[in-house]
Amino acid sequence: MTILACAVAITMGGLCAWQDSAAQTERELIAMERTSMDGWLKGDSGPMLAASDADITLFHVMTDRRLEGVAAVKDLYTPFAGRPLYDSYQMENPKVQAGSDMAVLSYQLVTHTGDLTRKWNATEVYQKKKGGWRVIHSHFSATAGAQQ
Amino acid sequence: MTILACAVAITMGGLCAWQDSAAQTERELIAMERTSMDGWLKGDSGPMLAASDADITLFHVMTDRRLEGVAAVKDLYTPFAGRPLYDSYQMENPKVQAGSDMAVLSYQLVTHTGDLTRKWNATEVYQKKKGGWRVIHSHFSATAGAQQ
Repeated sequence: MTILACAVAITMGGLCAWQDSAAQTERELIAMERTSMDGWLKGDSGPMLAASDADITLFHVMTDRRLEGVAAVKDLYTPFAGRPLYDSYQMENPKVQAGSDMAVLSYQLVTHTGDLTRKWNATEVYQKKKGGWRVIHSHFSATAGAQQ
Repeated sequence: MTILACAVAITMGGLCAWQDSAAQTERELIAMERTSMDGWLKGDSGPMLAASDADITLFHVMTDRRLEGVAAVKDLYTPFAGRPLYDSYQMENPKVQAGSDMAVLSYQLVTHTGDLTRKWNATEVYQKKKGGWRVIHSHFSATAGAQQ
């Protein structure tokens, strides 16, 4: 929704404001996710942990149960400290579906490590807390047919 | 939170009301999920489609991309019409994390078909719409180490 379109649609001011807010949330959450993924380029889990809520729940391809709480997630990441997870990555088709104080970001993560390309389905559920948006639930899985 | 505890904690009335509301949302969403899963006992995708928002996004172990919209999801289910997906199932450790108009239900789905047991990580993101709660994002994946 452009500024001009919003100005023209004067009777639809509320809708424009809502759309601007939704677009802003989308930009903000995608930027947070990129910051987390950029961290893993250097084996740094710090940005991802900083974005995680204390009560985060998490499904991961390496675990046979749902992790509960940021301490459990930190334990999962510890062995990878200082080890880049990939050489480069792309977030394919990121999409944010937002409510008033929660939003879900979904995308496909493509990672490149040497000649190896992998693809993952990524779901990040965010909730707006006092300190800003935090991930309250995370679910990554290998995409069907992707190289493992 | 029991009625007695709420009565005693008279100064915490607001907190009790919030907890009752959260508990109610949890019960409601788990019941909806069971209705969907009960449908698949008979190969009936109707309940799951009825719970899906028109703009649902969905990651599934059978698809290499995110499905967009309920029509695409319906197409995914069509080949399974009338074919029970399992003989029985359990929802393990269902948990609901709720905001004001959105909530995420996560659990592990255990399915039994003859001698075969499978386990799946399940994430269902719900949003409260005019007609009630609807699934706006769904992500199922095979649990690590589970029999495939």
